Amino acid sequence: MLFRFEETAHVTKEELSAQAPNLEPYLERLNRVAEADNYMYEESSINLPFDAEIVEKVLKLREKYVSPKLRYILDIGIGGSNLGTKAIYDSMYGYFDLVEPDRFPKMIFADTNDPAFIYKLYEFLRTHITDPREMVINAISKSGRTTETIVNLDIITSNVPFAKDRLVITTDFNSDLWKTARSLDIDCLPIPGKVGGRYSVFSSVGLFPLACQGVDISELLKGAMEARRECLNKNPLKNPAAVSAIIIFANYIKGKLINDQFFFHPELESLGKWYRQLMAESIGKDGKGVTPTVSIGSTDLHSMGQLYLGGIKDKLFTFVSTKNPKIDISVPQEPLLEILSEVEEKTTSEVMNAILGGVKAAFLKHDLPFMEIMLDNISPLSLGQFMQFKMVEIMILGKLLGVNAFDQPSVESYKQETRKILRS
Amino acid sequence: MLFRFEETAHVTKEELSAQAPNLEPYLERLNRVAEADNYMYEESSINLPFDAEIVEKVLKLREKYVSPKLRYILDIGIGGSNLGTKAIYDSMYGYFDLVEPDRFPKMIFADTNDPAFIYKLYEFLRTHITDPREMVINAISKSGRTTETIVNLDIITSNVPFAKDRLVITTDFNSDLWKTARSLDIDCLPIPGKVGGRYSVFSSVGLFPLACQGVDISELLKGAMEARRECLNKNPLKNPAAVSAIIIFANYIKGKLINDQFFFHPELESLGKWYRQLMAESIGKDGKGVTPTVSIGSTDLHSMGQLYLGGIKDKLFTFVSTKNPKIDISVPQEPLLEILSEVEEKTTSEVMNAILGGVKAAFLKHDLPFMEIMLDNISPLSLGQFMQFKMVEIMILGKLLGVNAFDQPSVESYKQETRKILRS
Repeated sequence: MLFRFEETAHVTKEELSAQAPNLEPYLERLNRVAEADNYMYEESSINLPFDAEIVEKVLKLREKYVSPKLRYILDIGIGGSNLGTKAIYDSMYGYFDLVEPDRFPKMIFADTNDPAFIYKLYEFLRTHITDPREMVINAISKSGRTTETIVNLDIITSNVPFAKDRLVITTDFNSDLWKTARSLDIDCLPIPGKVGGRYSVFSSVGLFPLACQGVDISELLKGAMEARRECLNKNPLKNPAAVSAIIIFANYIKGKLINDQFFFHPELESLGKWYRQLMAESIGKDGKGVTPTVSIGSTDLHSMGQLYLGGIKDKLFTFVSTKNPKIDISVPQEPLLEILSEVEEKTTSEVMNAILGGVKAAFLKHDLPFMEIMLDNISPLSLGQFMQFKMVEIMILGKLLGVNAFDQPSVESYKQETRKILRS
Repeated sequence: MLFRFEETAHVTKEELSAQAPNLEPYLERLNRVAEADNYMYEESSINLPFDAEIVEKVLKLREKYVSPKLRYILDIGIGGSNLGTKAIYDSMYGYFDLVEPDRFPKMIFADTNDPAFIYKLYEFLRTHITDPREMVINAISKSGRTTETIVNLDIITSNVPFAKDRLVITTDFNSDLWKTARSLDIDCLPIPGKVGGRYSVFSSVGLFPLACQGVDISELLKGAMEARRECLNKNPLKNPAAVSAIIIFANYIKGKLINDQFFFHPELESLGKWYRQLMAESIGKDGKGVTPTVSIGSTDLHSMGQLYLGGIKDKLFTFVSTKNPKIDISVPQEPLLEILSEVEEKTTSEVMNAILGGVKAAFLKHDLPFMEIMLDNISPLSLGQFMQFKMVEIMILGKLLGVNAFDQPSVESYKQETRKILRS
């Protein structure tokens, strides 16, 4: 993974150096959390990639539920309970589901309670699953009391044959959901107590469904381990997570209130949505915060490009691309319709890189700040690197902004109002 | 369609009345454009829903290419060439594709030049299409020179059997693409000259692929006609598009630089992305502009909710929900896992409405401005209403902001740089 920011991120070496000493105590703390290697601290999610016990539990249950017959993994969860899993699934498989109808297993995500979708979902499972081994259901709720997840779980278990026998629950040890499930002999996976939803992708929350799918979770965790090593460097100026956080903070101070992650592969859109939650929920509080947005290259150049280049300059961008795509194809030398000679014989990667290059040149001309992340390719290893890097970045950004990056106090306000309505 | 804003949008009756006279001349102009009933003005897209000639051409080609054998409609286009079509397809069908594997036809969208996707796409078509009648390809490019569209078209036509015989091109009459296609006897559909991509959904750009899919385009256009009637009301205070534009403008002046469309049905996400382009490209210029974002209820309450309620108050929201969903289902009275008694026996719509109600109450408490749009349901009629309403709203907003809502001058800058790289 390459990370670049020099000359383009609107932050001078002096500004970086000035912030660095403020971060040293926190980097010391992160190192102590890593050394403790337990789940007693808010930052303890950084220890997940090294937790062999979780992997063992996950693989054991995987063995119980996964056979070559498996066709569908139903992932019931919302927010931190499914965004990390969906990010990885969509990057590797989901974006291609429609053009790979014969590739199994496929993952289906049920997050909100959309009537049409939930109805069609259970009708589909009811009519298409003929052998219990064709399906695994994983319901994930840290508290065990997430309204949407319980509603979907209730509807699916009462309408889909075999559902109870193919259900695995992921929740806090001894939550009400845990106890109820265990009393019915339903398998449960715990979430380490201090690990909040948005930092939980490397726990059983992400690992179990991804392992069922066939994602190489050891590679995913290896990527996360590598990134943790780099992002725990006690010298902030040599620590990419710290540098990235300082850049976001410095641009925030200068009025860049929107942080756009601009992915040059559409299959990474869900990765952007994972980061969107991570940033919004972690630092959007106390009247502060940067609004995270997700753009897709080149699609959104034909949508948001005009605003980015010609509108208010209130955004910091991060271009995310890949260095060595696993697949590449060429435009033919003599196409049926000869319209643009400059693309003939070019590969699609060359075209996409030319567009990215064109955008970077235009952004420089228009004085728009940006960072660059170049993944090696789209693989569990690269995704593990990116996600761990971003989780540490956000912890450090919370420190710079003076907010608690681990709570979400304001969401309680709408939940209370919702409960009032539901009970009335 | 219901439109509500009173007491919640942070705009007083006095503020609305003060802006109204400024808009009267422009509403007069829109009415003259409607009376002229031609395509000579920038606003002429408002005449599309009444254009019987376009519908006739579209239905004639539909008859030629659509039979009960049709399984896949490949829509090759980017930005204004596909976002409207995708908005309607995804709302009605696409969001459910995975759980309705046996429902045909399905639409596949190829916009950017992602190597992995384009490779998998043509391999899929090459191996799964055995009879030409199973496929229609529609390539759409107003200028006829859109890089991504030409690249995808070149690759598909040279790798997929029958592609040339099943290809319909939608482009400006007599563009290079038009002439080349006609010389090869490929069917072409024209786009009225002054109708820009982001205003073109009711032209052949949207109507042809949607008609092939089986969407009732007469209902879609009927909805648009109804909305045009309301949105051409010469009294701005009785004109929902004018009122909505004034509210966005007044909140912009007060520092609400982000405009979030918060859809309480996940299948409407692509409709949000259509509006995102419409707003960003139309008013993001001359250093002005509001950044459009899309949220999904209840999904994003578990992602962006904390930031919206607890972060910087720089956003105006529009909640979009439905009044009479066509499908609804109930949580069982005695679910397998009894966890939340308050949801038992409730329908999913009741739960979603309770969440929306909870959010609105919390937004009021936190002094966050919002409007509300309630569609009757998710149907071609309702979508036609919503889209025409929004297109007129944006034209009026351009007038209030003093920008040209019909050009996109800044995108040329990255395109020039891209061409330089491609030619080097």
